[in-house]
Amino acid sequence: MEAYKVIEIKESVFADNNREADRIRAGLKAERTFLLNLMSSPGAGKTTTLLRTIEALKGELQIGVMEADIDSVVDAAAVARAGVKSIQLHTGGMCHLDAGMTEQGLRELGTADLDLVVLENVGNLVCPAEFDTGAVKNAMILSVPEGHDKPLKYPLIFTVCDVLLINKIDVLPYFDFDLEKVREYALMRNPKLQIFPVSAKTGEGMSAWTDWLRRQVREWTRG
Amino acid sequence: MEAYKVIEIKESVFADNNREADRIRAGLKAERTFLLNLMSSPGAGKTTTLLRTIEALKGELQIGVMEADIDSVVDAAAVARAGVKSIQLHTGGMCHLDAGMTEQGLRELGTADLDLVVLENVGNLVCPAEFDTGAVKNAMILSVPEGHDKPLKYPLIFTVCDVLLINKIDVLPYFDFDLEKVREYALMRNPKLQIFPVSAKTGEGMSAWTDWLRRQVREWTRG
Repeated sequence: MEAYKVIEIKESVFADNNREADRIRAGLKAERTFLLNLMSSPGAGKTTTLLRTIEALKGELQIGVMEADIDSVVDAAAVARAGVKSIQLHTGGMCHLDAGMTEQGLRELGTADLDLVVLENVGNLVCPAEFDTGAVKNAMILSVPEGHDKPLKYPLIFTVCDVLLINKIDVLPYFDFDLEKVREYALMRNPKLQIFPVSAKTGEGMSAWTDWLRRQVREWTRG
Repeated sequence: MEAYKVIEIKESVFADNNREADRIRAGLKAERTFLLNLMSSPGAGKTTTLLRTIEALKGELQIGVMEADIDSVVDAAAVARAGVKSIQLHTGGMCHLDAGMTEQGLRELGTADLDLVVLENVGNLVCPAEFDTGAVKNAMILSVPEGHDKPLKYPLIFTVCDVLLINKIDVLPYFDFDLEKVREYALMRNPKLQIFPVSAKTGEGMSAWTDWLRRQVREWTRG
């Protein structure tokens, strides 16, 4: 038997998603749990990045993971093997999570004993950016093969994120990807964006990211 | 002044998208125009593939292009330089095109003199797969850096497509991507799927794809 639960979540009934998201954040604050919403295109490396992040932080933080997927359990199986509390959320075809769907997941996961919960959102640069999930911080991954023009073409997600991981820098030599240009375009969308070039595969640059995340969790859960 | 028009399209008013899509196809058949709906994740190489395809076919076919984007004109500018009739469709934040939106584009483009129209859909593996645009055939691009597990995680788009281009095979040596596995997973979803491994960058494998497309257009427009 697999070590994770699969939850079929339903579209939210709440008319006001933003108010619902604020309510979730207040609840998380009260129980000292930090929620990170992790977004990217399909195949940008969300799961690999998450596994590295868990590896770096699981000695000091109690971590839980919610894997949102349209229909599979591929990622939840990988995360369960990493030894943290995890559940799989099935969105039933939905292309994003809203606050109500996130709350169903948090309830099933059980967050009282957790310092950090990561929501791995559906792989999509468009729809997830439109819904506040109740996360304390939003992170996105853009991978080198996707190209440095993405902040021009998918502006909203760069605007709503607090942190941008530029992943797969190990393959920079094989792509026409300009790190300076992507920084410039992304900061045009969001001047406060924290940017970390990383390779989740080799581990390069990952400690700057995990240091940032650790600080955010400490600050939020200090009470 | 730029050589393309930007159209702000609105969400469709049609209750029955499938019936509307059938109506569009009948109209295209009557005027002997083939519509290809091209879908992929952000950064999989839709525009580069399209430019190569135009280069291969523009001597024999009259081609038009509709570039759907949430907000930018990056791709339309590139396509306009390739010397074919093109327009930019702005979806106003919408993550996909439906039949009604496609029809607004076709009307603005003007299709009577065209053999082949390519709709470059919004970069997204989820929502575009849910809407019949009225296209004669659906094509998708999966790029090597995205990983061979994508047919497991985004099943619907593999089911609704007639053809799958596996792009960026020039970087196969740098990724853990199994061509045989991706074939197996994709054919599980859709046994009739035509699969072409290509590199739009180097041109490798592109003639098998453009030969297939030429045959489809000839068959549809023969009358």
